[in-house]
Amino acid sequence: MRIKVVVVGVGNIGRAVITGLTKQPDMDLVAVLTRRPDEVRRQLADLPVFGWDQRESLPTKPDVAVLCGGSRKDLFDGLQGAEMLKLCHTVDSFDTHARIPTYAQVMDLTARTTGHVAVISTGWDPGTFSLARVYGSAFLAGAKSYAFYGITPRGGLSMGHSDAIRTLPGVQDARQLTHANPKAMEQVRTGKNPDLKPGDMHWRECFVVLKPGADPEEVRTQIVTMPHYFEPYATKVQFVSQEELDRDHSGMQHDGVVITVGETAPGHRAVIEYRNVWDSNPEGTAGIMLAFARAAHRLGSLNNSGVFTPLDIPPAFLSPHTKEKLLKNFM
Amino acid sequence: MRIKVVVVGVGNIGRAVITGLTKQPDMDLVAVLTRRPDEVRRQLADLPVFGWDQRESLPTKPDVAVLCGGSRKDLFDGLQGAEMLKLCHTVDSFDTHARIPTYAQVMDLTARTTGHVAVISTGWDPGTFSLARVYGSAFLAGAKSYAFYGITPRGGLSMGHSDAIRTLPGVQDARQLTHANPKAMEQVRTGKNPDLKPGDMHWRECFVVLKPGADPEEVRTQIVTMPHYFEPYATKVQFVSQEELDRDHSGMQHDGVVITVGETAPGHRAVIEYRNVWDSNPEGTAGIMLAFARAAHRLGSLNNSGVFTPLDIPPAFLSPHTKEKLLKNFM
Repeated sequence: MRIKVVVVGVGNIGRAVITGLTKQPDMDLVAVLTRRPDEVRRQLADLPVFGWDQRESLPTKPDVAVLCGGSRKDLFDGLQGAEMLKLCHTVDSFDTHARIPTYAQVMDLTARTTGHVAVISTGWDPGTFSLARVYGSAFLAGAKSYAFYGITPRGGLSMGHSDAIRTLPGVQDARQLTHANPKAMEQVRTGKNPDLKPGDMHWRECFVVLKPGADPEEVRTQIVTMPHYFEPYATKVQFVSQEELDRDHSGMQHDGVVITVGETAPGHRAVIEYRNVWDSNPEGTAGIMLAFARAAHRLGSLNNSGVFTPLDIPPAFLSPHTKEKLLKNFM
Repeated sequence: MRIKVVVVGVGNIGRAVITGLTKQPDMDLVAVLTRRPDEVRRQLADLPVFGWDQRESLPTKPDVAVLCGGSRKDLFDGLQGAEMLKLCHTVDSFDTHARIPTYAQVMDLTARTTGHVAVISTGWDPGTFSLARVYGSAFLAGAKSYAFYGITPRGGLSMGHSDAIRTLPGVQDARQLTHANPKAMEQVRTGKNPDLKPGDMHWRECFVVLKPGADPEEVRTQIVTMPHYFEPYATKVQFVSQEELDRDHSGMQHDGVVITVGETAPGHRAVIEYRNVWDSNPEGTAGIMLAFARAAHRLGSLNNSGVFTPLDIPPAFLSPHTKEKLLKNFM
């Protein structure tokens, strides 16, 4: 039974989901929904593109909607999930950690009312890293899990921090790379479960293109003192030309690791590490979302309804393989 | 609701489970079952030790039995699981990969008949590494997963290979350390999904104590030509005294990694790695088994019966934390 998928939203993630769908052996793209159908139709000429207001009259009824909107604007405030749950199951990558409990409640209510399944927060953090935290702390009783980002020398691109720099007066364009602090990782690996502040674990590297006439020192000060975003961290600011930025810093790479360390007996250290490295962060996220789209369909076909996070789903439900094949080849 | 646990078997794993239980916030050890009760009572004076034939008349009815017998002799041929399922749920670390489908069938039949839950094959491989293979291949469509063992310089102790050497004439004692081949790991990380033979991926290091008068070259030849165990691998044999073996090579350490690499789009590499490093392999395994013991109890309390592998169980069921706490602090 093939899974009919509708992609909602055509930003970085939406485009990556459309690409990722071509690699899935059991899924078909039946519609792309967007608020800009004319523009998107020109970009994606061969695909079934429809306007958001056409969602209830699609020619093929979808099984699962992959929600690719932003967490705040589209998913939470825009009710993208609640609207799509009227039609089919949903999967999203809602990633505002502090609001996950509330979002889960809202989606659970709608999903139960409509008899569908909503799988929420399925990217890599939250998502695969949430799984690593829960498994790690369950296997190593009493151990804390730590997540580090930008563990490879190239660092990981943070879209949110790049956007924050771009809002500053005097800034034409910017890219922010997050780097893990290797000393903090080694400290965690000792197994002493240290108390680490955000600024102990990461430092931030900014490549900034100035507007003509802007004062570099003023911009630097504005960046490094920005509360929450940069103030708690060691931050390195480099000024480059737009040409250099586009040539050397245009990658969407990101990566990270969840480290859980404990002692199984006095002096016996145990380490569990889970690592994701993406040349393309949106494409990595898309692959994860599509595995959970399969799970949403599976959960629905077993007459479930309501909200599920990655923590609530048997791993086998994510796989395109049969139970027999998993027992024989994957155990 | 605290979970009442009976430990069946008091070998390396059984002792590690008894230690591990003291770290679980929600479990109590209510019985230790053994075929050697008199001997074990002397070793574990403070614990409730009972003979195997007393299992149906334990003073406290257990919720879950942690089966610590060997895969062939105790679990498969000895029906340790089938017997215990008459009394309660079970969890084991059955690790003969080729026989898992058959073992699953047998345990499923008994578990359904008795109305209990049997969670099988919960160590690290099969077990956590099975989870890594299924998640990895689901998130990276089309990618193969590779497992390497002995990835730290010290290597990982293989009990089975050590035992195989000890059966040879002329050998008094032996320890076999497995080492991953770093070149093969790098080859996998390129993302080309190479075809690797066992001998490409690992090499084997043997520390051997000879019996008086034994011919070292003859023993060396017997080891390196042993089919399946050593013949397919580069094997290094070193002869040491019993004192050196006990002093330098008595650790039970083991470790490994599952690497899954694919391309999310042409030229965009994606890497997922899951790593376990144990100073004590039995204690690491015990921690995993106890998390799945919690899951067995949870599955049972939701009126499930039958066989489950780690692939069939929602990750949240392994955790001692409430659903609310997981949503708030682990997602």
